[in-house]
Amino acid sequence: MRYELYYWPGIQGRGEYVRLALEEAGAGYDDVARRSGGVAAMTRIMEAKGGGTPPFAPPFLKAGKLVIGQTANILLYLGSRHGLAPKAEAGRIWVHQLQLTITDLVLEIHDTHHPLGPTLYYEEQRPAARRRSEEFWKERVPKYLGYFEQLQSGSGGAYLTGRRLTYVDLSLFQIVAGLRYAFPDHMTKFERNIPGLVALHDRVAARPNIAAYLESDRRIAFNEDGIFRHYKALDR
Amino acid sequence: MRYELYYWPGIQGRGEYVRLALEEAGAGYDDVARRSGGVAAMTRIMEAKGGGTPPFAPPFLKAGKLVIGQTANILLYLGSRHGLAPKAEAGRIWVHQLQLTITDLVLEIHDTHHPLGPTLYYEEQRPAARRRSEEFWKERVPKYLGYFEQLQSGSGGAYLTGRRLTYVDLSLFQIVAGLRYAFPDHMTKFERNIPGLVALHDRVAARPNIAAYLESDRRIAFNEDGIFRHYKALDR
Repeated sequence: MRYELYYWPGIQGRGEYVRLALEEAGAGYDDVARRSGGVAAMTRIMEAKGGGTPPFAPPFLKAGKLVIGQTANILLYLGSRHGLAPKAEAGRIWVHQLQLTITDLVLEIHDTHHPLGPTLYYEEQRPAARRRSEEFWKERVPKYLGYFEQLQSGSGGAYLTGRRLTYVDLSLFQIVAGLRYAFPDHMTKFERNIPGLVALHDRVAARPNIAAYLESDRRIAFNEDGIFRHYKALDR
Repeated sequence: MRYELYYWPGIQGRGEYVRLALEEAGAGYDDVARRSGGVAAMTRIMEAKGGGTPPFAPPFLKAGKLVIGQTANILLYLGSRHGLAPKAEAGRIWVHQLQLTITDLVLEIHDTHHPLGPTLYYEEQRPAARRRSEEFWKERVPKYLGYFEQLQSGSGGAYLTGRRLTYVDLSLFQIVAGLRYAFPDHMTKFERNIPGLVALHDRVAARPNIAAYLESDRRIAFNEDGIFRHYKALDR
């Protein structure tokens, strides 16, 4: 089955966690909204009325007749089908729980540049964004990445949950890469606290399918429309 | 099996979505942190080192040997065991997707009083909270509740996904109740746009197990330490 991924073209955003999973799995997929007419097709699915299961927002994945929305939900679905998560229930629940914690972190990252709301421009909320970014680096990054670093250092394997890679490892790769892009000064100083996660990032980046993907034009470059935005004023 | 729920005592917070599911199901559970020594027990589980699956934050549920964190993940687990979600995969995925959208909404509700970060006090961020609340009511409430209203009006049954109640209906009850508490003026005006959700709220509140729960002292009252806080300055 060839999947159809629907996500805003031009940004990595939340779609990137799904792309990384599809790429690692070697699964066939179309990144629909990057094709001509794709955004209109995406909008039609979201605005479908009368029964049906319209997603609230991208990303969503078409898998045959299923339309699956919410990043962590898509990964839960893909994980069990492509060996990117444990098969046993306890492991599946644990990996999904970790992904939902990453989901919370991603929203807090977005809030660093949009503290007053997602529908206002960054330029309308610069002072608030500076304060939020300060709190983020002082309190939240140590808490979130400290948690994952502790899990990694106690995992007994190369990956967060042990010897086998899961979609959570792919997502943590993206978190490290994204924080490096958005907050290079902060991250340079902070990385000494998370040697396990930095090594995990490198290990994921070196996997053949991921390395090939990162070199390809399927990987959209980081930019200031996505979740990870580099604004110098926020990186002090 | 008797469950153990771990969540901050004294607030409904994110634990409430789990409580509502357990109560509706008539499942036996201890609300551990509300007992003497309970918060210390909760902290010990979260700080467990060396292997294990420590949750990042409450709420979490102990179900036998399993420790399940993240509200939507707990509901996914309970849903299939207590008839609070469809059994077939497509339905399970759809209901979970809806719950994850409610999770996003809950975080935006929290951000109305904490736009500059969760670790600062409300009193340190009043002007930003006013701006965020304004954006929330202008843009976000219509988008989120409009989405759920449309699903409810097209459901063809008494509940959001049809004739049978799911944990999503319980959570939407809590959203309507909470917004009424936190933003009474805004909500009074807005409710005319969501007649289906208001009727759903009433239908859930009238279910015998839920009605009994709401009358009991197991239901903590809304207050200004939780997610839904009534600050007059934010309700203009």
